[in-house]
This record gives sequence, structure tokens and C-alpha cells, in this order.
Amino acid sequence: MSKKCANHPITLRQFQAADGFWKEKMELVRIEVIPYQWEILNDRVEGASPSFCMRNFKTAGKLMREKKEKGAAFQEPVYTFRGFEALPEDMEHLEDRFYGYVFQDSDFSKWIEAAAYSLASHPDLELEKTADEAIDIVCAAQMENGYLDTYYIINGMDKSLTNLKDNHELYCLGHLIEGAAAYYEATGKDKLLKTAMKFADYIDSRFGPQEGKCKGYPGHEIAEMALVRLYEVTGEERYLNLARFFIDERGKQPYYWDSEEGAEKKEGERYQYHQAHRPVREQDEAVGHAVRAVYLYSGMADVANQTGDETLKEACRRLWNSIVREKMYITGAIGATHIGESFSFPFDLPNNLAYAETCASIGLIFFAERMLEMEPDAAYADIMELALYNSVLSGMALDGKSFFYVNPLEVLPEACHKDERKFHVKPVRQKWFGCACCPPNLARLISSIPSYAFTENEDTLYMHLAMSGTVQKQVSEKTAAFQIESGMPWNGKVSIAFTGKEPVSMKLAVRIPGWCGSWQIQGAEDFCCSQDKGYYYIEGMWEAGCRVLFDFEMKPRFYQADDRVRDDIGKIAVKKGPVVYCAEEADNGKNLHLFRVLASQPIEETETEIQNQKLPALYVAAEKKTAVKETGQLYTEYEKPVYEKARLKMIPYFAWANRGENEMAVWFYEGE
Amino acid sequence: MSKKCANHPITLRQFQAADGFWKEKMELVRIEVIPYQWEILNDRVEGASPSFCMRNFKTAGKLMREKKEKGAAFQEPVYTFRGFEALPEDMEHLEDRFYGYVFQDSDFSKWIEAAAYSLASHPDLELEKTADEAIDIVCAAQMENGYLDTYYIINGMDKSLTNLKDNHELYCLGHLIEGAAAYYEATGKDKLLKTAMKFADYIDSRFGPQEGKCKGYPGHEIAEMALVRLYEVTGEERYLNLARFFIDERGKQPYYWDSEEGAEKKEGERYQYHQAHRPVREQDEAVGHAVRAVYLYSGMADVANQTGDETLKEACRRLWNSIVREKMYITGAIGATHIGESFSFPFDLPNNLAYAETCASIGLIFFAERMLEMEPDAAYADIMELALYNSVLSGMALDGKSFFYVNPLEVLPEACHKDERKFHVKPVRQKWFGCACCPPNLARLISSIPSYAFTENEDTLYMHLAMSGTVQKQVSEKTAAFQIESGMPWNGKVSIAFTGKEPVSMKLAVRIPGWCGSWQIQGAEDFCCSQDKGYYYIEGMWEAGCRVLFDFEMKPRFYQADDRVRDDIGKIAVKKGPVVYCAEEADNGKNLHLFRVLASQPIEETETEIQNQKLPALYVAAEKKTAVKETGQLYTEYEKPVYEKARLKMIPYFAWANRGENEMAVWFYEGE
Repeated sequence: MSKKCANHPITLRQFQAADGFWKEKMELVRIEVIPYQWEILNDRVEGASPSFCMRNFKTAGKLMREKKEKGAAFQEPVYTFRGFEALPEDMEHLEDRFYGYVFQDSDFSKWIEAAAYSLASHPDLELEKTADEAIDIVCAAQMENGYLDTYYIINGMDKSLTNLKDNHELYCLGHLIEGAAAYYEATGKDKLLKTAMKFADYIDSRFGPQEGKCKGYPGHEIAEMALVRLYEVTGEERYLNLARFFIDERGKQPYYWDSEEGAEKKEGERYQYHQAHRPVREQDEAVGHAVRAVYLYSGMADVANQTGDETLKEACRRLWNSIVREKMYITGAIGATHIGESFSFPFDLPNNLAYAETCASIGLIFFAERMLEMEPDAAYADIMELALYNSVLSGMALDGKSFFYVNPLEVLPEACHKDERKFHVKPVRQKWFGCACCPPNLARLISSIPSYAFTENEDTLYMHLAMSGTVQKQVSEKTAAFQIESGMPWNGKVSIAFTGKEPVSMKLAVRIPGWCGSWQIQGAEDFCCSQDKGYYYIEGMWEAGCRVLFDFEMKPRFYQADDRVRDDIGKIAVKKGPVVYCAEEADNGKNLHLFRVLASQPIEETETEIQNQKLPALYVAAEKKTAVKETGQLYTEYEKPVYEKARLKMIPYFAWANRGENEMAVWFYEGE
Repeated sequence: MSKKCANHPITLRQFQAADGFWKEKMELVRIEVIPYQWEILNDRVEGASPSFCMRNFKTAGKLMREKKEKGAAFQEPVYTFRGFEALPEDMEHLEDRFYGYVFQDSDFSKWIEAAAYSLASHPDLELEKTADEAIDIVCAAQMENGYLDTYYIINGMDKSLTNLKDNHELYCLGHLIEGAAAYYEATGKDKLLKTAMKFADYIDSRFGPQEGKCKGYPGHEIAEMALVRLYEVTGEERYLNLARFFIDERGKQPYYWDSEEGAEKKEGERYQYHQAHRPVREQDEAVGHAVRAVYLYSGMADVANQTGDETLKEACRRLWNSIVREKMYITGAIGATHIGESFSFPFDLPNNLAYAETCASIGLIFFAERMLEMEPDAAYADIMELALYNSVLSGMALDGKSFFYVNPLEVLPEACHKDERKFHVKPVRQKWFGCACCPPNLARLISSIPSYAFTENEDTLYMHLAMSGTVQKQVSEKTAAFQIESGMPWNGKVSIAFTGKEPVSMKLAVRIPGWCGSWQIQGAEDFCCSQDKGYYYIEGMWEAGCRVLFDFEMKPRFYQADDRVRDDIGKIAVKKGPVVYCAEEADNGKNLHLFRVLASQPIEETETEIQNQKLPALYVAAEKKTAVKETGQLYTEYEKPVYEKARLKMIPYFAWANRGENEMAVWFYEGE
């Protein structure tokens, strides 16, 4: 009953990872992150902020049992406002109340989604048992009518769906669907899927174009893309229609949210934060909360892909370009200001004030993947790869045990401690956050990375990211299989060998990375080859013995930003392939700002070891300003500065801050 | 009965300004600013935030009358909290309540102080009549016991003096004293002075080391320096003692404020914002709210100067150095962050995020003047002059009709409108503010500028700033007089002619500006001359015909910042004499960040006209990065940038933003 788009991601069951970069990360998530998160969800990690998530489901479940038992005698809770985050006064004596953020339910959904992906790639009976038990607890909290958000179930349903702007019922629905669909696809078990459908059906009964139904839409987007996914999994068109309804209503005037209680009617920029300032088809600049934005754009692309809506596709393309041409850091990070965790104005990309939230880059990857479904163009995959290897991976420590929300491109630890403007920038990763969005988002992305690496249509397998492992594809009745050995992201050698049992006539489309100056291919002589929008299409009869070898030139290169990025003017960054490099105090001493990079000189490749991991590193020719004599004067008459020869050791950006608190910088002034 | 320090400022009656730079500014304040402020105090300026200041005094005065009339039947208002700023719900129907900020009374005090200085230099019967009437209104509001803060008189006295940390009773006292002393000195009228003394006596009866008295101190400093001034004017030691008490108690543990209602006990940095985190003699870093800080340090210096307290003097020197060696912009601006309008950590001086409040630089001038009383050292006067000609003057438009709170060193108007991190930075001056501190502070400083330009002791007249005009000095029974013709700040030629009626034996000490590379003097051949700490002492018998001519070399020069100022690394600024220059979009087009200055080439001097005023300007050799071809890519492989020859037109920093909204920058990258 699958309603997938013509171009769609492969399922995780189609890919078996082999040793290499991504398998290692996936294993880290499987072994470290998912079990740790489960402990967090159950408030069992000392020193970490409690989630209260499973506790809330149990409290709601207890209420549901009582309701069933008492029947008409059951007294419904009457809504009491508990704030955006309700913390207990006394951790020792918790009551049967709701605790945590209004969106706390989504912690479970993100976890089950990550667990599902992990199970799909790597069966694990114990994890599946834990997951099944968790699902039982969650499903028991559902109301008879299908509603399932413990915030209102516990606090009082009389106010449910009355504050769509700030509260997160539709957001929780979205995450629940994502988790349920993933678990269903991984295990075939549909208990959670049915629960999610029932909740979606309830929402569908309340929202829609029909008279008398609510014309609202989510304050934090995600339901849009989740509902499309539910449509794809179940084939039920009402979910697609509901997603489209949310997309279509958004930003219409008069604003729906103006009718909600406590609506703050800021003229001019009203609802920009939520991307609801104007109808989505009229939006052409990425604005507001960056995570919300890319979740919305992903949902728009999903709906456009399913419906063929050209104006919606155009809006997606415009918003994509607004991000990648005007509002993205070189690391693929987005959201330049911590105020509202938002996009700033075009080309305002300060390195040391950046918000650059891990989740926003993850959302950018969601958006990129959907644009690839819309139209295979390596430009989308280039950005997907960039964000993945840099601003996303930097969100997690090399040991998978601590996390960044914020991924700045320049850090002076003293500033993070003493300058309130930079308090959002942390010089070291943290164990866990009260608002746990980034770590579980990282977990669900990394465990499902193969479905971003490959998409397929009837007769074509697209390889957007070269990952080592075996990928399978059904073509009519036949099963093609390719064994891939990839040096990515450290070198550009990629071997693709056909390992299917019988010959298959199909196309393999391999992305030519945008960062690659020249490249070579061997072994495709007998195929019909062509190149289009950054993909190399190898068409013909694939059979045992077929093996193509790509060699994408990958050498470290200097990069510059568009002149309009004031923070980067006169500065240079270093990338090798998709990986951005940075320099740290640990390798180069304090006062990184005194270095200037000499772009005319070659970059030397080397290795380094961080937390017992061997990593590539670079030596970049540089010069360092010699200390000026201490005059006791802050400003002195200009003297031509003196530089001494130096070199900068640079490491992959994602590996920064794994050696304690220290200075870091991506961009360096250009020397002469 | 004067108790002035050995070294003290001249009175304004000793100086008569002649045509020149400062007379013009003083006239602007007299003709434009003071009358405008009076209208503001009376809520008569359309489009400007109402002050409510005189209204509050009238309301309190009415209460006082009622109290007298009704006697025991009078019902005291019982305190109701009205917030830090109490605005009327309906501007059309104001009640007999307190409106405005808790410190609104000080608006009057600052105005009367400015008016007094103006009257001292320039008698004006109409202004004096207005001032006398205003004084009548204010004095009528005083309680029988001497208390005079309309916030509590109107809102309820039962809570008076219970929130010293946040409310501003002692601050209002301080400003009242400053205004009253100035008016007494200017006019000889003592009505307001007596009122201020009565209020001070009431506070003195409530605070002090004696058992049973309150051990608190001001949340916003100024009373300290004001009380020393009251001591100087009246000779009453209790005022000096009270000032010393406030200084001595400040920051002692346990913290007095902890005992106040609603005290927020932030560990670690508790009360840093108020400079009350530790005893003042143990402070060595300028921290917290910058205006509060320099007001405190000024009071500390006053007390130290009067008492000879060496540990207090040492603290003043340390704090002075902390500011000028680590926390001051090249314009003399201080307070690098808008968060708490505060100092940031050492060397954190971002140009485009600066707070750099006009009032903070004014306070720095207060502090500098007191350090000059402590020890004549041109280093203090250099900073006083720097702040005056740059960050202070930039607070006022050339026409005296609009004002800046914030004086950034780099502005991109788009950022001020779209990036909330820079919302405090305004690209154009504003007419008036609800919190009217900077405009009246500017008025009182500029009208009293001669008392900063000259200090004296028994036999020496110090000239810190060369202003055109005639200055008199009493030496024993004789009156010395000097006619000064000064080219400052535009050229370094200063002529000083003795114009006294009889010969006087004395020393004239002329500051050799720190910015001056070489200098010459003529006409001092018959005197005994010496040089010490930046002053040139000319000692001997001054008589008719004596005339010395100084020629301080003043040419435009390039400056650099200490390497630790990360925001200025690789950058150059331009100063000529005490005046910092900046470049504006109006002269140089958009995208000032694309310019690099060529420091090896000469600077050309020219003139410009802004708002019908002729002003010096400079042409600086530069190169401008040629626009990179549009690729649609935000980041591209590095290409050696191409620069085209250009020149930057630069104008005095204080004159920026007088031609509408546009880009501005003080610091430019250095070209090759």
C-alpha cells in the first residue's frame, strides 16, 4: 500500500553497513546514545536534567485506567496552566502531575524512532523488548477518542487545542507518527502505528476545510511531514490532505492565531518566528526559528512531491536558495542568532555569536533529502553532505557521551563564561539538556543515515553519499545489490561492485561531489554513461563482475565567503572534500586571532589522535603576529606589524572540543 | 567656608568663553538643549516620551499642602508597588499618581544643574525666573522631615528606604545636591540648596555607623560625589562623613542588600553589576553597569582627595587603569555590552555591538577630573579630552536636537533594524528618551566644560584643555588673568597672554597632549620652566605683555589597538590630535567593509560641510576589494582578492549620523 514518491529514500533494510566511517557512528549511537537516552527518559541518570517523559505517560495511563474503572463518576481534571516548563518543587516527592516541557512527550517519540532505525539495521532482542514495553506504556495513555498528549490529558483537556501557537500538541503528534512509522517499518509491529493513526484521525476530525472545523495549524511544524509519511505508510489519503491543509492555511489572513488566547499581535513581523507571517507559497526568505523553518519546508516539499503542486515546489526552491545562498555557515549550520534560535538577515553570519543549532542542520538535511526526491540535483546533496559531516556531527562528542546545541565557528572560552551575549555558546559539550532536542535528533538521523545516502525510483539507484556497505534494490522482480567501499569523507576513492545473484538492467546514478575539481572512473566502459545535474548515470546490464571505481580528487583547499558576509571578509577557511577544518588552542596555543593563513603555500596532510581516535589533520602555512611590546596603552600609534613564520595545525571541525575547553576558529585572516 | 581640595576645578565665573569650538557647543546647549528640556520636563513636547517629572513634584506638593491643612486627619498613602516605570493607562486622564521611572525626580535636578552652569557663564533673567519657579515647585514637595523623593511621597512612605538596591532615593538625593549646589554657586540663591541639605540631613539621620542606623548604600551611585560637593560648598563635615560611610560600607559581607525584600542572591557575581561585590578598596577591575561604576569611582576619588586615604587612592588608580588599559574604546567610550549596560571582560571591545553609553563617557570625565585633583598627570587629562571630543560629543547631533545613548564604532543600519542583538544600536539619533539620562547629562557637562578645562591650587593654574576665552585666578590678593586663543581640537596652536591688571607671581601649568609628537613654545624665555607628568610649568612673574605660544604638532595619524582586542586585530583607526575620525557611507558608498587602508601613504587634509557646518575631513589612501562575480554560491574556492585603488573620506567621529541613516566605521583593515 506504499504511496512513496517516484523518487524516494531506500528503506534501512536495503542497506547493510560495512566497516567504515558511518558504521562506526551508527554503532556509537546504538551502543552509547540509545541506551543512555532510555535511562534519561526514565529519569535514571544522576546529574542530568530529568525528562519526566515516561513518568508523564504513566501518570496519564493511570488516569485513563481510572476513567475506565469509574465511568461517569470519573472527575476530569480541569485545566490549570503550568507554564512552558513545569518543574517539581520537590524532586523527592513527585505528584501525579505533568512535569517537564509542554512537548515532553516527543522525547519518547524521538527515542523510539532512533531505536527503530537501529533495529532495522541491527536486530537486538533486548532493545526491541524495551521498546515494546515503552510502547505499551505510551499507548495506555491514549484517550478513547484518540487524543494523546499527556500535557493536556493530565492538566485538563478543556483547554486542549486552544493554544496551537505556543503549545505543542500537533508537534507531539508529528513526532509520534515519525516514531510509530519507523517502528512499524523496522519491526512490522503496528501497535504504536495504530495509536498514532488514531491520534491523527482525532486531529483530522477536528481540523480541515469543512465548516465548523478548526482552521488552525501547528506552532512548531513537523506534523506536515509526519502526516505525509503516515500517508506513505498507510496509503490513507486523509493524512496527506490534512498535511496539505496545514500547509495551505499557514499564514493566511486574518491570522488564525490572533483568535487564540493571549495572542501577542506584533505588527509587521507578526508570526515570522513561526513562518506564519504570510502564506507559504508567498514566502521567499527563510526567517524565524530555524528548526521550525526547515521542518516546515520539508513538509512543504513532501506535500509538493506527493501532489505535484508546482507553486509549492517553487516556494521550496526559493526558500532553499534563501538558506544556502544567504544564510548558511560554511559548516552547513543555520540560524545565526540565539535570539529566537533564528535566522538573521541575509549574509549576517557572525562566527562567534552563531546559534547554529545541531537540530537546525538536521532539519536542513531533511529538507535537502526531500528536494532530492523532487529533482535529483547534486547541489542538494552537496549541502546535505556538508551539514552532515560538519555542523551535525559536531553536535556529538567523539565518544557519543556529550552534545552541543550550538555549533559556533569561533570560540574564546572566556567570552562564553563572561559575556552574556555569548552565554549560549558552550566551550565544551554537555551531558544532557532539559530541553532534549539535539541528542535524540542526532540519534535518529545517524541511525537512519543510509536512507539519506540513497534514493531510488523504478529503475535508478541514486547514491548521494558514498557509504561502505551493501545496498540492495528491487528492479521489477529482480534484486540488484552493490557492494560499496568508500574512503569518504577522508578520500575520494569509491568502489562499487555488483553483487546481485542475477543480472539486472538498471541505472546507477552516482553523485559527483561539488567540492571535487576533477575525477576519474574506471570499469564503466561497457555501460551507457551520461552526466546530469551533478550525477553520473551508469546505465546497462549489471551483472557479477561489474565493478566501477570512482576517484574523486579530494585535496585540502582554501575557501572564501561571499563578500557580503562581513564577518568573513579577508578571511579564509579550509576544507578537504566535504570536511571543514578548524584550528584549536590545544594544537596551536592561545590567541588564534594572531595567526594569518598563507594561501599561496601548499597544505600538508598529516594525522592526529584525539580521544584515542586517529583522525586526519592538516598543517597550513601561516604567520603569527609577534606580540607588541607592553606600553600600558590600549591604543598606540600604528607600526607595521611583524609576523613570524608559523604553521597552523587544523583538525576536522566536527572533532573540536574533545580535548577540554579551548579556543577554536574556522576562519582565519589571509596573510600575504 | 569652601572646603575644596588643594587642587580643584575653577568656578565657571572664573572663565569667559570666546568664540571657538566650545563656546559654540555651550551656546547650542544654552539656546537649544536647556529650553527644550524644560518643555520635556513639563510634558509639552509632542511626539516625545513624557517625563512626568514636574507633574510628580506638583502632585507631591499638593499632598504636602493637604497634609498641612488636614493635620492628623490626613491619610498617608499606603505603598503600592508601581514597577520600575509607571506609565498611565490613559494619557488623557492622568490621576494624582506617580508616573515615570523611579528616578524621574532626577530629570529636574540635571536640568537645574545645566541651567545653573549656563547662568554662571551667561546671565539670562528669563531662564533664571523659570528656574526659580521650578525650584518653588520642587521645594514644596519636600516633607517636613526633609525627605524628598516623589516616588515614595506619592506611592507611600511606609516602604521608603527599603529597596536601596533597585530604587533610586539616594540617587535622586545625589542629583538634587548637584543641581542645588550648582544653582547656589551660579546665582547665590540658597533655597534649593537648603532643601537639598535638609534631605541630606534626613538621610544622615537614618544612615551611619552608629548603632540602630541603617548600614545600606546606594544601588545607583552618585550620592557619594554629591555629598562631597555639598561638604565643599557648606563646609559641613557630616556630609563628607556620610559619603565616606557609603563608600566604606559598599560590598561588605554579609551584603546589606541581602536583607532587602526580593533580594536576588546570585552566587559568585552577586552585586557586580552595582560594584558592590566586594569592598571598594579590594576592587581592581572595573565591572558592572558602566555609569554606576564611574560615578562610584568619582565618589571614591572625591573622598580620597578630601581625606587623604591612601588605600582608597590606590583603588582609584587600579580601577582607572582597568578601564583605560583594558576596557575603553579608542573613542573614550566605555561599557562594551548592552546587557546590563556594562563593562565586558578585559579587551572585549566589539565595535558593532558596543553599548558605549554617552553617560558612561561623561562619568569617565568626572572620574578623570577627580584623578587630576588627586595628582596632576596629563594621562588623566588625555583620556578626559579623548572622551569629550569623541564618545561624549557624538551623543548629540550637530544641531543639538537629537541624541544617542549608544555610540557604536561600526554600524550597518540593516543590522540595527533586523538583528535583535543590535537593536540597542540606533543608526540615527533620537529626539528624546523615556529614560532621559544622556541628553541632560550632556547639557550639564557641556555647560560646565571650563571647570574641566582648568584646575587650580594656591599658586598654580592648570590648563588641561585649551579653550578660547579668558580665565582668571586669584593668587593671594591678586587676580591673574589669561586670554587664551586655541585652535583645538583642529590645530595645536595655543596662545596664552597675560591680561591681569597687576603682575602676579604664579605658575601656569599647560598640558602637553599625549597625542602630540613634538611641540614648541615661544615667549617663556624669562620664566623658570620645567616639565612633569605631561605638564609644562611656567613659573615666574606674569605681567602685561607676557604671552606664550604653544605649537603642538597635530597631524593625522594611524593607530592600532592592543593585540588582545580581537575585534581590532589587523585594523587601523585614524586620529588627528584628540579627534577620532570615521568613514560614512554618505561619503564612501555602501560596503565600507570592503575598504582596506594603506597606512604607508600620507593622509590628505581637507574640509567638508555637514548640516551647514564646515568641518575638517581627511582623505586616506585605501584599496577596495572588487566585487566577486555572482556564482550563487555562498562559499567558493579561494581566489586571491583583487583590490582597486580608492580613497576613504573620513570625518570627525562625533559628527557621524548627521546625514541620515548610513554605514559608519572607525576601524579599517590594513592594506598592503
